[in-house]
Amino acid sequence: MKILTILLLLISLKAFSQTPEHKLKQLNINLPEPGQSLGSYLDVVQTGKLLYLSGKGPLKSDGEYVTGKLGKELTVEQGYQAARITAINQIAVLKKFLGKLSKIRRIVKVNGYVNSESTFYDQPKVVNGYSDLMIAVFGEPGKHSRTAIGTNTLPFNMSLEVEMIVELQ
Amino acid sequence: MKILTILLLLISLKAFSQTPEHKLKQLNINLPEPGQSLGSYLDVVQTGKLLYLSGKGPLKSDGEYVTGKLGKELTVEQGYQAARITAINQIAVLKKFLGKLSKIRRIVKVNGYVNSESTFYDQPKVVNGYSDLMIAVFGEPGKHSRTAIGTNTLPFNMSLEVEMIVELQ
Amino acid sequence: MKILTILLLLISLKAFSQTPEHKLKQLNINLPEPGQSLGSYLDVVQTGKLLYLSGKGPLKSDGEYVTGKLGKELTVEQGYQAARITAINQIAVLKKFLGKLSKIRRIVKVNGYVNSESTFYDQPKVVNGYSDLMIAVFGEPGKHSRTAIGTNTLPFNMSLEVEMIVELQ
Repeated sequence: MKILTILLLLISLKAFSQTPEHKLKQLNINLPEPGQSLGSYLDVVQTGKLLYLSGKGPLKSDGEYVTGKLGKELTVEQGYQAARITAINQIAVLKKFLGKLSKIRRIVKVNGYVNSESTFYDQPKVVNGYSDLMIAVFGEPGKHSRTAIGTNTLPFNMSLEVEMIVELQ
Repeated sequence: MKILTILLLLISLKAFSQTPEHKLKQLNINLPEPGQSLGSYLDVVQTGKLLYLSGKGPLKSDGEYVTGKLGKELTVEQGYQAARITAINQIAVLKKFLGKLSKIRRIVKVNGYVNSESTFYDQPKVVNGYSDLMIAVFGEPGKHSRTAIGTNTLPFNMSLEVEMIVELQ
Repeated sequence: MKILTILLLLISLKAFSQTPEHKLKQLNINLPEPGQSLGSYLDVVQTGKLLYLSGKGPLKSDGEYVTGKLGKELTVEQGYQAARITAINQIAVLKKFLGKLSKIRRIVKVNGYVNSESTFYDQPKVVNGYSDLMIAVFGEPGKHSRTAIGTNTLPFNMSLEVEMIVELQ
């Protein structure tokens, strides 16, 4: 009987360790306060079990965006890090909207727009910074379908912008 | 008893004043006949309670598009007005498809692609012309999540193109 | 009684001739093995009755993409053919995911991003190569809403990238 209790305790601990919030802690990520909408729109709209998140960029903790074009001012690795920051910002939006991130059933779709020189072709490597963090935080349900394209410019000259569709439990 | 009748009358008048069609009238907007599809596709497809609207541009009443790039041929204010025209065109598409605009439960998602010089960063201010009209016509349910990006070119050199997802009652 | 049997036979033959797989055969199209994902993502994600397909490009049977910008390295006709190849690749993704293409109720939405010179305005004519094949293979349910825009660059310098939403029966 004692063994069973311990087993149940271990199972529930394991379950706890798998909440996205705990994963964020393990990764040493503190969610920022979501940035203000940059226009006449909302950060999230729910329809049925789907959440549509507005496009967001790599807003740093100092309130500035990572700016500049890939293939000119930024390297792929810097772009990857900017995409990771963007992912953290979108998770902050989800946390504020949902309270608990465990309400998320899966990440459905990610669209990444990369501020690019016309001769830069590595958009997927940049947007991986976003996708990899989603998978690190949400595990298997963090895997999503995706489109990554280049653009010649973005709002505030930010280096990339990412929007997302999320399914709730 | 008389007071109750008047109250009911006022309530129903208020309800009437809130149909999107009435709002359009208040704003002095006449919906045009939707423009022809520019390729092998439909203006609207319904799946479940969602309508997916094709990308549309700022087609004026004279049958010409507002053309040119933001940051070069057009100012932000001209872009804002072009976005407003685009919004009117999309509402015309919805009106034709639905008959009554009150069948709409809410505007879910707007994606705005702005024809831009590589140094133009004010896409959100341009797309606000679209978003603001949706909110003016549909009220609170007109508020939506949104993505605004720059592009180096668009079909017919139109100044912006906007697509939308709408939820029905 | 004999006539009824023949009629039923004809009807079932007609139904058979209308499977997307049969249409592909009529069009002399052999579906390739879907290309590898180019990053940390999946080719397809299902939510409810909707499939979200990742952006794909014109990967040829020799494993190379059709590359280059419309209005510079490629003509509209070459772009149309590249879009057709992209459509075949996405149908291959669907076939692998679903087993039977008849599980598809309709093509809902297509977004085409065309690698373009800043003075190229014929993106719709290019993306028609994708749309026309969907309609050829799926018939009436192949008709979809659509957005076609230009971009200054795309992953691997491919000539276009297309993503799609599909509804299942």
